[in-house]
Amino acid sequence: MADYRKMWEELGMDVDLHDQLCAVLPQAFGDVFLSQENRPDSMDYYNMVVADIHGIRPAELIEHQKKGGKVFGTFCVYVPDEIVFAADAIATGLCGGSQFWVPGGEKVLPANTCPLIKASVGARLDRTCPFFRIADMFIGETTCDGKKKAWEILSKDVPLHVMDLPQMKRAKDIRAWAEEIETFKNVVEKFTGNEVTAEKLAESITLINNKRKALERLYNLRKNENLPISGCDVLLISQIAFYDDPVRFTQMTNKLCDELDQRVKDGVSVVPAGTKRIMLTGTPLAIPNWKLHNIVETSGAAIVCEEMCTGTRYFENLVDESKTTLEDQYMALAERYMKINCACFTPNEGRIDDILRLAREYKVDGIIDVNLKFCNLYDTEGYFVEKAMKEAGIPVLGIETDYTDSDAGQLRTRISAFIEMLDNK
Amino acid sequence: MADYRKMWEELGMDVDLHDQLCAVLPQAFGDVFLSQENRPDSMDYYNMVVADIHGIRPAELIEHQKKGGKVFGTFCVYVPDEIVFAADAIATGLCGGSQFWVPGGEKVLPANTCPLIKASVGARLDRTCPFFRIADMFIGETTCDGKKKAWEILSKDVPLHVMDLPQMKRAKDIRAWAEEIETFKNVVEKFTGNEVTAEKLAESITLINNKRKALERLYNLRKNENLPISGCDVLLISQIAFYDDPVRFTQMTNKLCDELDQRVKDGVSVVPAGTKRIMLTGTPLAIPNWKLHNIVETSGAAIVCEEMCTGTRYFENLVDESKTTLEDQYMALAERYMKINCACFTPNEGRIDDILRLAREYKVDGIIDVNLKFCNLYDTEGYFVEKAMKEAGIPVLGIETDYTDSDAGQLRTRISAFIEMLDNK
Ligand code: SF4
Ligand code: SF4
Ligand code: SF4
Ligand code: SF4
Repeated sequence: MADYRKMWEELGMDVDLHDQLCAVLPQAFGDVFLSQENRPDSMDYYNMVVADIHGIRPAELIEHQKKGGKVFGTFCVYVPDEIVFAADAIATGLCGGSQFWVPGGEKVLPANTCPLIKASVGARLDRTCPFFRIADMFIGETTCDGKKKAWEILSKDVPLHVMDLPQMKRAKDIRAWAEEIETFKNVVEKFTGNEVTAEKLAESITLINNKRKALERLYNLRKNENLPISGCDVLLISQIAFYDDPVRFTQMTNKLCDELDQRVKDGVSVVPAGTKRIMLTGTPLAIPNWKLHNIVETSGAAIVCEEMCTGTRYFENLVDESKTTLEDQYMALAERYMKINCACFTPNEGRIDDILRLAREYKVDGIIDVNLKFCNLYDTEGYFVEKAMKEAGIPVLGIETDYTDSDAGQLRTRISAFIEMLDNK
Repeated sequence: MADYRKMWEELGMDVDLHDQLCAVLPQAFGDVFLSQENRPDSMDYYNMVVADIHGIRPAELIEHQKKGGKVFGTFCVYVPDEIVFAADAIATGLCGGSQFWVPGGEKVLPANTCPLIKASVGARLDRTCPFFRIADMFIGETTCDGKKKAWEILSKDVPLHVMDLPQMKRAKDIRAWAEEIETFKNVVEKFTGNEVTAEKLAESITLINNKRKALERLYNLRKNENLPISGCDVLLISQIAFYDDPVRFTQMTNKLCDELDQRVKDGVSVVPAGTKRIMLTGTPLAIPNWKLHNIVETSGAAIVCEEMCTGTRYFENLVDESKTTLEDQYMALAERYMKINCACFTPNEGRIDDILRLAREYKVDGIIDVNLKFCNLYDTEGYFVEKAMKEAGIPVLGIETDYTDSDAGQLRTRISAFIEMLDNK
């Protein structure tokens, strides 16, 4: 690992505290990922990215800033990266996925807040994540109570723009989101000093669509009976998609898919025939939250799909590339983004349809509906998810967890029992 | 108490379960209210309303329905009653304030949901509150996560319309709320079969403004050094304001204020000179949630103001009565309602200004910031409230509670200590 201490110090990070994180991550990564058998060779790229996650990509972002470019940090898949890249800026995901950052968040937030929000606030205020230091501006949204209020706290510490996401999906709400996208474009233009033209925006729409297509190609490969890649590995790729350079990420992911195509032709599978196929639904799994995938895949089952924001909600549906004026492009963006079915909408019946469709497409044997503790939105919606799955005859296990390891044993017991039940069906 | 059993049965209520509630309420009411000394005579009216709360007013609503009128149930002070009354319909508050209803809500909602929502859902699904049975249509709003999702569950059981409240307060958000008010008007017109004309709406704007003025008059009387009425009694009146016939309520409240005017002239106070003056801030106290007022006022202090939706947020600011077209009236309504400072907005800095202003106006010695457990919005905002109060040198005690009595002892200890600290200052 290169020595990035100087860079971290220049970012104003608490380097001593950060060392504690650096001390545990490689071990955790090794345990979950490197111990897997028969991994695709092309995973090397993603291994490298994670091994130096606080080094390589941050150094690139700083390089970009030195040339006068800006970096925008985002927290939700409704925020259109296209606008950012069209202004020659870089968007990077900032959701915190480690318990390491939670106590820092709890200094200012209620303990009854979802760990993703607490970790994100803690990572910034405790100065222990380079991405949270590098981002010149944070972009928030009005998706859930916890985030709505967290922006107020973060905005005292860093420039922050909030997009007002409508809470329903009528035609006028889609128009309202198009307006918010235009406002966002104005903010980004002003902050970067770079104009967003229809040509630039068309380019970045294609850029991000290509990333979506690569992820979709990867996910489609998981639909094969012979599973060419583990759920753990795909989760890692999904998580890296939020941080990595989009052109390189698309390239590397397509390269991986070439390898997986060959595996499918050769009938290679990472799991024995008959291994039960699990879909995870629910709240996002921000990096480095690998807990559930690790438990499921070391308990004799395979994860073949994630109906999550670190999963299908991130890449499904493309933005219409045929539009040539900014007005039309805002609307095309709004239409694509408003197809995402997050529990923050009321009602959100499209999500139930998504889950039923994905269960069919990925030939799923059972569903684990995952809720981050204190996410009231997905927790309440879980009532409908479980109901619909029961009606469709799909076994479902509801799980609530946070970022601590204290429930790992209990989760393993419940998940093993669920898989055993599927095996005996 | 008249025998309303037949009426309750006809409403499809679970009368046996409801009997359990009827068995405890009079005792609770007696303990908190009737035991007070030197109450204004005009409190007799409110005593009577509460004594027969599930009888008198429900019977009036049913009478209205028999004549072809509709009843709309609401859950938030952003929903404009004016629209409902302009269609010759009746609006009634439906927020549940008793632990009695909570287990019913927990059957379908996460336990980590605020008790107000759990009680409201439970009161409907368990069929133990006549108001929840009588309302022909429920009106929801997109204020907080818990309510957003609760509408989806309730809408399977009762006609329900949701208003999409913007999450910010820019000029375009106020216009968006005016649009939502127009949509609401269309829904109400269609559901009642009655046209809402500018004339009818002007009348109902005056009607509700008059109710606000009466409440403001009552609250202004609490600004006197000689306190003519207890906090408990004013809380009860605020709670009844959500249910009662607005004309009669306004009349009776003005009559009470006449009596209190006389008390002020005579220098009559319900508490000894020097009694510390407390303001409560935070989440609403839905009927029959009298816990905190009772504890504070039996611990040697007086509550002189509630910066709550059952308090100043309900009546402050009037709707402009000078508008003569529906378009202008929607906008006038939107402007007034968007002046309410609820923590569901981001940011919500106006609320801090409100609290500082109210603390001055009501000559407050200390503030108790109250949070209903699992209300993430007010809990997070409490961070800013406490900070601002400390900066202003106003003692503040943060409290989190639910509808159970299990924390009453602990609350009494903390509140007594807070009052003692104020006494020794
Ligand atoms: S779960 Fe909802 S709020 Fe969270 S990132 Fe996904 S879309 Fe955004
Ligand atoms: S998991 Fe739920 S509570 Fe947490 S950030 Fe996402 S929507 Fe908000
Ligand atoms: S606290 Fe907010 S959401 Fe609740 S009733 Fe008041 S304004 Fe509505
Ligand atoms: S108290 Fe908070 S959580 Fe409860 S209904 Fe009101 S805004 Fe929602």
